[in-house]
Amino acid sequence: MLHEDERIDQLYANDIKIIQSPHVFSFSLDAVLLAHFARVPKKGQIVDLCAGNGAVGLFLSKRTNALIDGIEIQPRLADMARRSIQLNELTHQMTIHTLDLKESLSVVRHNSCDLVVCNPPYFKGLPTNKKNPNEHLAIARHEIHTTLEDVIQISSKLLKTNGRFAMVHRPDRFLEIIQLLEKHRIAPKKIQFVYPKMGKEANILLIEGIKEGKLDGFKVAAPLITYMPDGNYTNEIREILYGQ
Amino acid sequence: MLHEDERIDQLYANDIKIIQSPHVFSFSLDAVLLAHFARVPKKGQIVDLCAGNGAVGLFLSKRTNALIDGIEIQPRLADMARRSIQLNELTHQMTIHTLDLKESLSVVRHNSCDLVVCNPPYFKGLPTNKKNPNEHLAIARHEIHTTLEDVIQISSKLLKTNGRFAMVHRPDRFLEIIQLLEKHRIAPKKIQFVYPKMGKEANILLIEGIKEGKLDGFKVAAPLITYMPDGNYTNEIREILYGQ
Repeated sequence: MLHEDERIDQLYANDIKIIQSPHVFSFSLDAVLLAHFARVPKKGQIVDLCAGNGAVGLFLSKRTNALIDGIEIQPRLADMARRSIQLNELTHQMTIHTLDLKESLSVVRHNSCDLVVCNPPYFKGLPTNKKNPNEHLAIARHEIHTTLEDVIQISSKLLKTNGRFAMVHRPDRFLEIIQLLEKHRIAPKKIQFVYPKMGKEANILLIEGIKEGKLDGFKVAAPLITYMPDGNYTNEIREILYGQ
Repeated sequence: MLHEDERIDQLYANDIKIIQSPHVFSFSLDAVLLAHFARVPKKGQIVDLCAGNGAVGLFLSKRTNALIDGIEIQPRLADMARRSIQLNELTHQMTIHTLDLKESLSVVRHNSCDLVVCNPPYFKGLPTNKKNPNEHLAIARHEIHTTLEDVIQISSKLLKTNGRFAMVHRPDRFLEIIQLLEKHRIAPKKIQFVYPKMGKEANILLIEGIKEGKLDGFKVAAPLITYMPDGNYTNEIREILYGQ
């Protein structure tokens, strides 16, 4: 079941096993934080765009009976995700589609989703060879096959009215995120900033919006601090990663 | 020099004395945080809109040789501010104009300011009698004589190209602030959220923009936490209030 360069990692907080490969794709803290941040419907339909090795959907599966469809353009990653779904005995609940996210409406109905989650590529344009010689990693990190606007536009099409959108991204793209959400009729409702340490600028942004929602009631959630001054995870992050 | 209901408070961190009145107006932590947040030009022209009893301008005066003009619509507050300027021997540097901020261009030239700071009324519409039976406080807290758009529009007119705008406000008005800044050609560049305690939603927002600035390079500054779990100020806030 495992390829040569792969290993099985476990997210202890929810007892999910995930097939990873350092050469191809490993989920990051960002995926864990997105799954933790998203408010999950009890049932219905969830879509995970830019699903990678399926981490976000796998983490969400324990908190919902909703069907979870993951969309991933890279066959190698989609295959890892499918094997993780089997490993966790979630084939009744989760499906991975090897697909450009712009084709999502060919597998999930328009206006049908209760929640769309996305941990998209963060960086504009092509990587320099120096940064990302690895094509798998480059596609996951850079806007090569998809852009922020593609992600938000297709999310809006997938969502029901009042369906929720939850995304993790970088704070330097924040203004663009707000503009694109409003353009595609998703009202930003809640944002959470993650700071690597006290005294440092935010390096991760989590944002929730509601399709066709009202523009009032915007909230900035409690801050998350990743590391203590000594370099260990804070208690809050440890709880999210390892459980109580 | 003091009216019956007034007292002199001191901001220990910068040795400024301020005439206050609990019945009319007392500066808040928000004003201190705004003065601390604003990047101050060494010389030139600063305008403090919604100056109240002059606190923000007084705090800034120690860090700059720039002229500081305060605009305050309430004669009673403008008078307190003028007496504080005398008390601190700053009449060569600071001037208070009793004026509706929409008339600011009658006392400060168009496109002339290096920095505009503002601690505006936070609340939309009229207060209920319950909340603010006091007219002075009501005008300072509610958008009775001015609105967020008035503040941002006049700030844009006052500022030079590349001049800075710095404002304190509430996070629930954040989306509106971003929209209005962009409408009036002030590029948001930095935002800082203030959280009352760890684990609580942000209750204060500090934002800096640059007139005609580029839309890239947006930053979310390190978080400020006001109180420790025991209810005392955090060390960071103590430093801002009382100095090292």
